[in-house]
Amino acid sequence: MPVLNLRSELADADDLPALMARIGHRARAATRGMALASAQTKDVALRTIAERIRASAAEILRENARDVSAAKSAGQSNAIIDRLTLDERRVAGIAEAVAQVGALPDPVGRQLAAFERPNGLMIERIAVPLGVVGVIFESRPNVTADAGALCLKAGNAAILRAGSDSHRTATVIARAMSEGLAQAGLPADAIQLVPTRDRAAVGLMLSGLDGCIDIIVPRGGRSLVERVQAEARVPVFAHLDGINHVYVAEGADLDMARTLLLNSKMRRTGVCGAAETLLVDKAVAETHLKPLVAALLESGCAVRGDEAVRAVDPRVTAADEADWHTEYLDAIISARVIDGLDAAIEHIETYGSHHTDCIVTEDSDAATRFLAEVDSAIVTHNASTQFADGGEFGFGAEIGIATGRMHARGPVGVEQLTTFKYRVHGNGQTRPV
Amino acid sequence: MPVLNLRSELADADDLPALMARIGHRARAATRGMALASAQTKDVALRTIAERIRASAAEILRENARDVSAAKSAGQSNAIIDRLTLDERRVAGIAEAVAQVGALPDPVGRQLAAFERPNGLMIERIAVPLGVVGVIFESRPNVTADAGALCLKAGNAAILRAGSDSHRTATVIARAMSEGLAQAGLPADAIQLVPTRDRAAVGLMLSGLDGCIDIIVPRGGRSLVERVQAEARVPVFAHLDGINHVYVAEGADLDMARTLLLNSKMRRTGVCGAAETLLVDKAVAETHLKPLVAALLESGCAVRGDEAVRAVDPRVTAADEADWHTEYLDAIISARVIDGLDAAIEHIETYGSHHTDCIVTEDSDAATRFLAEVDSAIVTHNASTQFADGGEFGFGAEIGIATGRMHARGPVGVEQLTTFKYRVHGNGQTRPV
Repeated sequence: MPVLNLRSELADADDLPALMARIGHRARAATRGMALASAQTKDVALRTIAERIRASAAEILRENARDVSAAKSAGQSNAIIDRLTLDERRVAGIAEAVAQVGALPDPVGRQLAAFERPNGLMIERIAVPLGVVGVIFESRPNVTADAGALCLKAGNAAILRAGSDSHRTATVIARAMSEGLAQAGLPADAIQLVPTRDRAAVGLMLSGLDGCIDIIVPRGGRSLVERVQAEARVPVFAHLDGINHVYVAEGADLDMARTLLLNSKMRRTGVCGAAETLLVDKAVAETHLKPLVAALLESGCAVRGDEAVRAVDPRVTAADEADWHTEYLDAIISARVIDGLDAAIEHIETYGSHHTDCIVTEDSDAATRFLAEVDSAIVTHNASTQFADGGEFGFGAEIGIATGRMHARGPVGVEQLTTFKYRVHGNGQTRPV
Repeated sequence: MPVLNLRSELADADDLPALMARIGHRARAATRGMALASAQTKDVALRTIAERIRASAAEILRENARDVSAAKSAGQSNAIIDRLTLDERRVAGIAEAVAQVGALPDPVGRQLAAFERPNGLMIERIAVPLGVVGVIFESRPNVTADAGALCLKAGNAAILRAGSDSHRTATVIARAMSEGLAQAGLPADAIQLVPTRDRAAVGLMLSGLDGCIDIIVPRGGRSLVERVQAEARVPVFAHLDGINHVYVAEGADLDMARTLLLNSKMRRTGVCGAAETLLVDKAVAETHLKPLVAALLESGCAVRGDEAVRAVDPRVTAADEADWHTEYLDAIISARVIDGLDAAIEHIETYGSHHTDCIVTEDSDAATRFLAEVDSAIVTHNASTQFADGGEFGFGAEIGIATGRMHARGPVGVEQLTTFKYRVHGNGQTRPV
């Protein structure tokens, strides 16, 4: 019962840096056993964890009720209370998600490349686990299970730091995970929950715990991601903003444009793949602009536009410079008329966040240029920006979406939680002087 | 003549942070033009640069003579003077290396993966440039050309910071590169040399220049790499040590073991792929240890051994704990007898630096386990550790060797100087609620 051990350790020690260092070293020590685990063993562990979460449902709901009650007393917002609150259906969903990660193909051991050299050396590039993943999250207790399961599948060790609000719930889920690991013969320390609400633990994780953390994944709101990106001394998989554009270009089919725009903006307004800005090409503004704006307004979306957009509907309010930089995460969109593909790309490169951007057009040359020149993690042609999601990409699940350029970009699934090594097969080759 | 412009700017401003910020922003601005450059245009640029370096040979040698003379006056070591000194043959070699990078396949635009989703979406993962690469190097002036050429080939912009000793030489080479870029119609700012010897420039680069540097590559000795790894706020491709092992296992052919050991240790002792520790399995110690130690000693290599190794030859001196941690980069090796494959792996995981490790054996099961379980960037079976090199891997050239786990590992060639993005091709797909 490693989680319980850690609790008593903390009570004894009260020395956070020492506690975190021990957690880091245990995680690092667990990486070897995890890296060598077979696909079958890892899948047994994931199925066992799913069963244990189901079997612990009553305890999870009891601790969750205490978390919810404390959050309410602390005056947390309804949005936070909603993200925090579990019921039987949600607990079943958490267990099911873990089991589904088990069913994914094993990302470890894949041969990523192989080449024979003129001297007869056979060189293979083979996927291996990344190492230790630090996950820092806020109020959603399901992240404990989701992130832990993805790290486990990729053969990594995980150090999970739950937000204060979800700490009791996360503790029960993390214990189920450690027990499932141990039952499958894997190191229980491969999934550890930081056993304290002390915020200083986050700072220690961001320092990398003396080389014991290889990558940090923040899961939460903008202020968390901002802090992590500013302070982390280890690489981070994250996105700060999703300022995503729908560009209705020359040659766009109006019906398709309307459908894609409404889905990109309004399917869910609070997700990072939601569109925040509509660009309508001057070439189609006369026919397309008024119906697109009307559709947005009728769906309940406020529109902030430039002069040309305001001219088609009196309900459009004026957009200012700040709007082009804003991720509303709400039923609000900024909109402008733009003069041609180059201007659209320029706008996106200037104001966008390199997350997900869409062109709507039947002109395949324009689409090809847009997909090549817009430097975003995801660029779509005639497809909703809300497809920015690991599940929708077929990755099974994602630990987050990255807009950085290193290692992972776009939805981060189990494949991107691996790195590689080179295996060189020889028969006595030496390198000439 | 961007280099000359920068020089006069510096004289005007004397404000290093402002100068470095301008260099960063110019590099970032150059990335777009570089990312969109065709393979052909980049290759024209590289051929033009090679020609300009050849044409500037006299000026390069004149400035190099001034660098060498200043370094001698400053009392620099013979090793540094040797690394710094160019002659006509070396200049021709620098130009030829640039031309060879031009002949490599274009790493940008490769389709790394493609999958169709049940809803008909076609998703491609496409290689794109990393962005801005900061290269910090010491006395070898050829790094200016090598690093600049590799960054250019991969569609990146490069900010190069030469060591004080090689600054004059690097300035002429960098100017040839900027001119070659401009002549091919590419942004001259895609290769910029930091136009000052002020060491504070390194610290500013390590800060990432306000998001204008995506990755730092240090090229130089241990103290440089250590400083970069400690201070960098952006990802780093580097290796601190190459504490590489040759494990002569049960089932090793003695002749092959001797040949591989001598090549791994003695081909060049100062390279990061050189072996530093010999592990001889107890199972073959009686037959193999004495001849292997004799071969090392006869080749001029000092041997520091444990008791068992000292017992076979009186010229072996005693190894202490520090020896197992030491990268000699010299004709010295540590050696011990080890009891079985697990103990060998344990030694390597405890003392190694995850760079390059070799097993010599005819037992393919043991080799398979070694290659799977030793967590190094490169693991070899019956092949010299000195193959740890981008050229030997067929990458054409390398910007360095990475022992980190993120993005690149092992020799970093042009492929690892790219990242990727997702292109999503649809025909009106929306994401269901």
